[in-house]
Amino acid sequence: MTVELSRPGDRAPILELARGVGVFDAEEVAVVAELFDDYLRDPIQSGYNFLTDRVPDTGAVLGFACWGPTSLSRGAADLYWIATARNVQGRGVAAGLFRAVEEAARAAGRWLIVIWTSSKPDYEAARKFYQRMGCELSCQLADFYDRGDDLMVFVRRL
Amino acid sequence: MTVELSRPGDRAPILELARGVGVFDAEEVAVVAELFDDYLRDPIQSGYNFLTDRVPDTGAVLGFACWGPTSLSRGAADLYWIATARNVQGRGVAAGLFRAVEEAARAAGRWLIVIWTSSKPDYEAARKFYQRMGCELSCQLADFYDRGDDLMVFVRRL
Repeated sequence: MTVELSRPGDRAPILELARGVGVFDAEEVAVVAELFDDYLRDPIQSGYNFLTDRVPDTGAVLGFACWGPTSLSRGAADLYWIATARNVQGRGVAAGLFRAVEEAARAAGRWLIVIWTSSKPDYEAARKFYQRMGCELSCQLADFYDRGDDLMVFVRRL
Repeated sequence: MTVELSRPGDRAPILELARGVGVFDAEEVAVVAELFDDYLRDPIQSGYNFLTDRVPDTGAVLGFACWGPTSLSRGAADLYWIATARNVQGRGVAAGLFRAVEEAARAAGRWLIVIWTSSKPDYEAARKFYQRMGCELSCQLADFYDRGDDLMVFVRRL
Protein backbone atom coordinates (compact mmCIF):
# COMPACT_ATOMS: atom_id res chain seq x y z
CA MET A 1 0.00 0.00 0.00
CA THR A 2 1.19 3.45 -0.90
CA VAL A 3 -0.53 6.63 0.19
CA GLU A 4 0.11 9.58 -2.08
CA LEU A 5 -1.57 12.70 -3.43
CA SER A 6 -4.55 11.76 -5.58
CA ARG A 7 -4.17 12.07 -9.36
CA PRO A 8 -6.75 13.05 -12.00
CA GLY A 9 -7.14 9.37 -12.97
CA ASP A 10 -8.31 8.56 -9.42
CA ARG A 11 -11.55 10.52 -9.87
CA ALA A 12 -13.66 7.66 -11.26
CA PRO A 13 -12.38 4.98 -8.83
CA ILE A 14 -12.79 7.33 -5.86
CA LEU A 15 -16.40 8.11 -6.76
CA GLU A 16 -17.12 4.44 -7.42
CA LEU A 17 -15.58 3.58 -4.06
CA ALA A 18 -17.65 6.30 -2.33
CA ARG A 19 -20.85 4.95 -3.93
CA GLY A 20 -19.99 1.36 -3.02
CA VAL A 21 -19.05 1.87 0.59
CA GLY A 22 -22.64 2.30 1.75
CA VAL A 23 -22.50 5.44 3.89
CA PHE A 24 -22.45 8.24 1.30
CA ASP A 25 -25.84 9.17 -0.11
CA ALA A 26 -26.14 10.61 -3.63
CA GLU A 27 -25.87 14.19 -2.37
CA GLU A 28 -22.66 13.36 -0.50
CA VAL A 29 -21.11 11.59 -3.51
CA ALA A 30 -21.84 14.74 -5.51
CA VAL A 31 -19.99 16.76 -2.85
CA VAL A 32 -17.00 14.39 -3.09
CA ALA A 33 -16.95 14.91 -6.88
CA GLU A 34 -17.15 18.68 -6.52
CA LEU A 35 -14.36 18.85 -3.95
CA PHE A 36 -12.17 16.48 -5.97
CA ASP A 37 -12.53 18.76 -8.99
CA ASP A 38 -11.71 21.79 -6.83
CA TYR A 39 -8.64 19.95 -5.54
CA LEU A 40 -7.45 19.09 -9.05
CA ARG A 41 -7.91 22.68 -10.18
CA ASP A 42 -5.96 24.14 -7.26
CA PRO A 43 -5.22 22.26 -4.02
CA ILE A 44 -3.96 25.36 -2.19
CA GLN A 45 -6.70 27.76 -3.23
CA SER A 46 -9.49 25.19 -2.85
CA GLY A 47 -8.35 24.10 0.61
CA TYR A 48 -9.03 20.45 -0.25
CA ASN A 49 -6.39 17.76 -0.33
CA PHE A 50 -7.07 14.23 -1.51
CA LEU A 51 -4.87 11.27 -0.70
CA THR A 52 -5.17 7.90 -2.42
CA ASP A 53 -4.06 4.55 -1.09
CA ARG A 54 -3.23 2.41 -4.09
CA VAL A 55 -1.65 -0.93 -4.93
CA PRO A 56 1.74 0.07 -6.38
CA ASP A 57 1.73 -2.61 -9.12
CA THR A 58 -1.77 -2.32 -10.47
CA GLY A 59 -2.64 1.24 -9.45
CA ALA A 60 -5.92 -0.06 -7.98
CA VAL A 61 -7.46 2.42 -5.53
CA LEU A 62 -7.99 0.88 -2.08
CA GLY A 63 -9.10 3.99 -0.28
CA PHE A 64 -9.00 7.75 -0.17
CA ALA A 65 -8.95 10.58 2.34
CA CYS A 66 -9.92 14.21 1.95
CA TRP A 67 -8.73 16.86 4.37
CA GLY A 68 -7.95 20.56 4.39
CA PRO A 69 -6.94 23.45 6.61
CA THR A 70 -10.00 24.79 8.44
CA SER A 71 -10.86 28.24 7.18
CA LEU A 72 -10.29 31.14 9.59
CA SER A 73 -8.18 28.85 11.81
CA ARG A 74 -4.41 28.66 12.21
CA GLY A 75 -4.31 25.33 13.97
CA ALA A 76 -7.14 23.12 12.78
CA ALA A 77 -7.49 20.83 9.81
CA ASP A 78 -10.78 19.25 8.82
CA LEU A 79 -10.77 15.59 7.96
CA TYR A 80 -13.73 15.37 5.62
CA TRP A 81 -13.68 11.69 4.71
CA ILE A 82 -11.71 8.51 4.90
CA ALA A 83 -13.16 5.63 2.89
CA THR A 84 -11.89 2.14 2.20
CA ALA A 85 -13.08 -0.11 -0.62
CA ARG A 86 -15.46 -2.74 0.74
CA ASN A 87 -13.32 -5.70 -0.37
CA VAL A 88 -10.22 -4.55 1.54
CA GLN A 89 -11.79 -3.47 4.82
CA GLY A 90 -10.04 -4.60 8.01
CA ARG A 91 -6.57 -4.51 6.49
CA GLY A 92 -5.39 -1.19 7.87
CA VAL A 93 -6.07 0.93 4.80
CA ALA A 94 -8.00 3.56 6.76
CA ALA A 95 -5.35 3.64 9.52
CA GLY A 96 -2.63 4.22 6.89
CA LEU A 97 -4.67 7.04 5.38
CA PHE A 98 -5.32 8.56 8.80
CA ARG A 99 -1.61 8.57 9.64
CA ALA A 100 -0.85 10.15 6.25
CA VAL A 101 -3.39 12.90 6.96
CA GLU A 102 -1.78 13.50 10.37
CA GLU A 103 1.61 13.82 8.70
CA ALA A 104 0.34 16.16 6.00
CA ALA A 105 -1.54 18.33 8.50
CA ARG A 106 1.52 18.53 10.75
CA ALA A 107 3.67 19.47 7.74
CA ALA A 108 1.15 22.23 6.99
CA GLY A 109 1.70 23.61 10.52
CA ARG A 110 -1.62 22.37 11.93
CA TRP A 111 -1.95 20.94 15.43
CA LEU A 112 -5.52 19.67 15.47
CA ILE A 113 -7.44 17.31 13.23
CA VAL A 114 -11.16 17.80 13.53
CA ILE A 115 -13.77 15.33 12.33
CA TRP A 116 -17.39 16.40 12.05
CA THR A 117 -19.51 13.31 11.91
CA SER A 118 -22.96 11.94 12.56
CA SER A 119 -24.46 9.95 15.42
CA LYS A 120 -26.28 7.65 12.99
CA PRO A 121 -25.75 3.90 13.48
CA ASP A 122 -24.17 3.80 9.98
CA TYR A 123 -21.21 5.74 11.37
CA GLU A 124 -20.67 3.55 14.43
CA ALA A 125 -17.66 1.81 12.86
CA ALA A 126 -16.21 5.18 11.81
CA ARG A 127 -16.57 6.55 15.34
CA LYS A 128 -14.78 3.54 16.82
CA PHE A 129 -12.06 3.92 14.19
CA TYR A 130 -11.47 7.58 15.08
CA GLN A 131 -11.22 6.68 18.75
CA ARG A 132 -8.68 3.94 17.95
CA MET A 133 -6.67 6.57 16.04
CA GLY A 134 -6.42 8.69 19.20
CA CYS A 135 -9.32 11.06 18.61
CA GLU A 136 -11.55 12.26 21.43
CA LEU A 137 -15.25 13.01 21.22
CA SER A 138 -15.15 16.72 22.07
CA CYS A 139 -18.66 17.84 21.26
CA GLN A 140 -22.13 16.51 20.48
CA LEU A 141 -24.95 18.71 19.18
CA ALA A 142 -28.37 17.05 19.31
CA ASP A 143 -30.53 17.09 16.15
CA PHE A 144 -27.92 19.01 14.19
CA TYR A 145 -28.11 17.08 10.91
CA ASP A 146 -31.71 15.98 11.32
CA ARG A 147 -34.13 15.02 14.09
CA GLY A 148 -32.32 12.21 15.91
CA ASP A 149 -29.13 12.72 13.94
CA ASP A 150 -26.58 14.58 16.06
CA LEU A 151 -23.32 16.24 15.13
CA MET A 152 -20.38 14.55 16.83
CA VAL A 153 -17.00 16.25 16.76
CA PHE A 154 -13.86 14.19 17.22
CA VAL A 155 -10.52 15.87 17.75
CA ARG A 156 -7.03 14.48 17.36
CA ARG A 157 -4.29 16.64 18.87
CA LEU A 158 -0.98 16.35 17.03
CA MET B 1 -35.67 50.41 13.42
CA THR B 2 -36.63 48.12 10.60
CA VAL B 3 -34.93 44.82 9.89
CA GLU B 4 -35.19 43.70 6.29
CA LEU B 5 -33.26 41.85 3.62
CA SER B 6 -30.09 43.74 2.77
CA ARG B 7 -29.98 45.62 -0.52
CA PRO B 8 -27.07 46.23 -2.91
CA GLY B 9 -26.68 49.78 -1.55
CA ASP B 10 -25.98 48.38 1.92
CA ARG B 11 -22.65 46.89 0.82
CA ALA B 12 -20.49 49.95 1.58
CA PRO B 13 -22.16 50.83 4.93
CA ILE B 14 -22.01 47.17 6.06
CA LEU B 15 -18.29 46.91 5.31
CA GLU B 16 -17.64 50.27 6.95
CA LEU B 17 -19.59 49.11 10.00
CA ALA B 18 -17.66 45.81 10.10
CA ARG B 19 -14.35 47.70 9.95
CA GLY B 20 -15.42 50.16 12.64
CA VAL B 21 -16.79 47.73 15.17
CA GLY B 22 -13.35 46.58 16.29
CA VAL B 23 -13.63 42.78 16.23
CA PHE B 24 -13.28 41.97 12.52
CA ASP B 25 -9.71 41.87 11.24
CA ALA B 26 -8.92 42.67 7.60
CA GLU B 27 -9.24 39.02 6.54
CA GLU B 28 -12.67 38.77 8.15
CA VAL B 29 -13.89 42.00 6.54
CA ALA B 30 -12.83 40.53 3.19
CA VAL B 31 -14.92 37.44 3.98
CA VAL B 32 -17.93 39.63 4.79
CA ALA B 33 -17.51 41.37 1.40
CA GLU B 34 -17.22 38.06 -0.43
CA LEU B 35 -20.30 36.57 1.22
CA PHE B 36 -22.30 39.74 0.68
CA ASP B 37 -21.51 39.59 -3.04
CA ASP B 38 -22.48 35.90 -3.10
CA TYR B 39 -25.75 36.81 -1.37
CA LEU B 40 -26.53 39.56 -3.87
CA ARG B 41 -25.81 37.24 -6.79
CA ASP B 42 -28.06 34.46 -5.48
CA PRO B 43 -29.23 34.20 -1.85
CA ILE B 44 -30.61 30.66 -2.29
CA GLN B 45 -27.68 29.17 -4.18
CA SER B 46 -25.05 30.95 -2.06
CA GLY B 47 -26.62 29.91 1.23
CA TYR B 48 -25.97 33.37 2.69
CA ASN B 49 -28.67 35.74 3.85
CA PHE B 50 -27.99 39.28 4.98
CA LEU B 51 -30.37 41.35 7.06
CA THR B 52 -29.98 45.07 7.61
CA ASP B 53 -31.36 47.11 10.46
CA ARG B 54 -31.88 50.61 9.15
CA VAL B 55 -33.46 53.88 10.17
CA PRO B 56 -36.61 54.04 8.02
CA ASP B 57 -36.38 57.80 7.32
CA THR B 58 -32.72 58.20 6.49
CA GLY B 59 -31.85 54.65 5.39
CA ALA B 60 -28.82 54.75 7.72
CA VAL B 61 -27.52 51.25 8.48
CA LEU B 62 -27.46 50.53 12.23
CA GLY B 63 -26.47 46.90 12.04
CA PHE B 64 -26.45 43.75 9.98
CA ALA B 65 -26.71 40.01 10.41
CA CYS B 66 -25.58 37.21 8.13
CA TRP B 67 -26.97 33.69 8.46
CA GLY B 68 -27.60 30.68 6.26
CA PRO B 69 -28.76 27.09 6.32
CA THR B 70 -25.91 24.82 7.40
CA SER B 71 -24.77 22.67 4.51
CA LEU B 72 -25.52 18.94 4.75
CA SER B 73 -27.97 19.65 7.60
CA ARG B 74 -31.77 19.71 7.57
CA GLY B 75 -32.19 21.44 10.89
CA ALA B 76 -29.35 23.83 11.53
CA ALA B 77 -28.71 27.38 10.47
CA ASP B 78 -25.39 29.12 10.96
CA LEU B 79 -25.42 32.61 12.34
CA TYR B 80 -22.20 34.01 10.92
CA TRP B 81 -22.29 37.54 12.28
CA ILE B 82 -24.36 40.14 13.99
CA ALA B 83 -22.79 43.58 14.19
CA THR B 84 -24.07 46.90 15.46
CA ALA B 85 -22.64 50.29 14.60
CA ARG B 86 -20.53 51.60 17.47
CA ASN B 87 -22.62 54.73 17.99
CA VAL B 88 -25.89 52.83 18.53
CA GLN B 89 -24.70 50.02 20.77
CA GLY B 90 -26.86 49.19 23.80
CA ARG B 91 -30.12 50.14 22.07
CA GLY B 92 -31.35 46.67 21.17
CA VAL B 93 -30.22 46.65 17.55
CA ALA B 94 -28.45 43.29 17.88
CA ALA B 95 -31.41 41.77 19.75
CA GLY B 96 -33.76 42.88 16.97
CA LEU B 97 -31.45 41.35 14.37
CA PHE B 98 -31.18 38.13 16.37
CA ARG B 99 -34.97 37.78 16.60
CA ALA B 100 -35.24 38.46 12.85
CA VAL B 101 -32.70 35.69 12.17
CA GLU B 102 -34.71 33.32 14.40
CA GLU B 103 -37.85 34.14 12.46
CA ALA B 104 -36.18 33.70 9.07
CA ALA B 105 -34.54 30.42 10.10
CA ARG B 106 -37.84 29.10 11.45
CA ALA B 107 -39.57 30.13 8.22
CA ALA B 108 -36.88 28.18 6.33
CA GLY B 109 -37.81 25.06 8.33
CA ARG B 110 -34.73 25.16 10.59
CA TRP B 111 -34.90 24.32 14.30
CA LEU B 112 -31.39 25.20 15.48
CA ILE B 113 -29.31 28.33 15.23
CA VAL B 114 -25.62 27.61 15.66
CA ILE B 115 -22.99 30.23 16.40
CA TRP B 116 -19.32 29.35 16.00
CA THR B 117 -17.32 31.91 17.92
CA SER B 118 -14.03 32.53 19.64
CA SER B 119 -12.97 32.47 23.27
CA LYS B 120 -10.95 35.68 22.82
CA PRO B 121 -11.66 38.49 25.29
CA ASP B 122 -12.81 40.63 22.32
CA TYR B 123 -15.84 38.36 21.99
CA GLU B 124 -16.84 38.44 25.65
CA ALA B 125 -19.70 40.87 25.00
CA ALA B 126 -20.87 38.75 22.06
CA ARG B 127 -20.89 35.60 24.19
CA LYS B 128 -22.95 37.31 26.87
CA PHE B 129 -25.32 38.60 24.21
CA TYR B 130 -25.88 35.11 22.77
CA GLN B 131 -26.61 33.76 26.23
CA ARG B 132 -29.14 36.58 26.84
CA MET B 133 -30.79 35.58 23.55
CA GLY B 134 -31.36 32.05 24.89
CA CYS B 135 -28.31 30.32 23.41
CA GLU B 136 -26.40 27.64 25.28
CA LEU B 137 -22.69 27.01 25.12
CA SER B 138 -22.74 23.48 23.69
CA CYS B 139 -19.12 22.90 22.82
CA GLN B 140 -15.64 24.30 23.37
CA LEU B 141 -12.60 23.12 21.38
CA ALA B 142 -9.30 24.27 22.84
CA ASP B 143 -6.76 25.98 20.53
CA PHE B 144 -9.04 25.62 17.51
CA TYR B 145 -8.53 29.06 15.97
CA ASP B 146 -5.06 29.59 17.38
CA ARG B 147 -3.04 28.72 20.48
CA GLY B 148 -5.14 30.04 23.34
CA ASP B 149 -8.05 30.87 21.06
CA ASP B 150 -10.77 28.23 21.40
CA LEU B 151 -13.81 27.52 19.30
CA MET B 152 -17.01 28.04 21.31
CA VAL B 153 -20.28 26.82 19.87
CA PHE B 154 -23.54 28.38 21.04
CA VAL B 155 -26.86 26.82 20.11
CA ARG B 156 -30.32 28.32 20.16
CA ARG B 157 -33.14 25.79 19.83
CA LEU B 158 -36.22 27.22 18.11
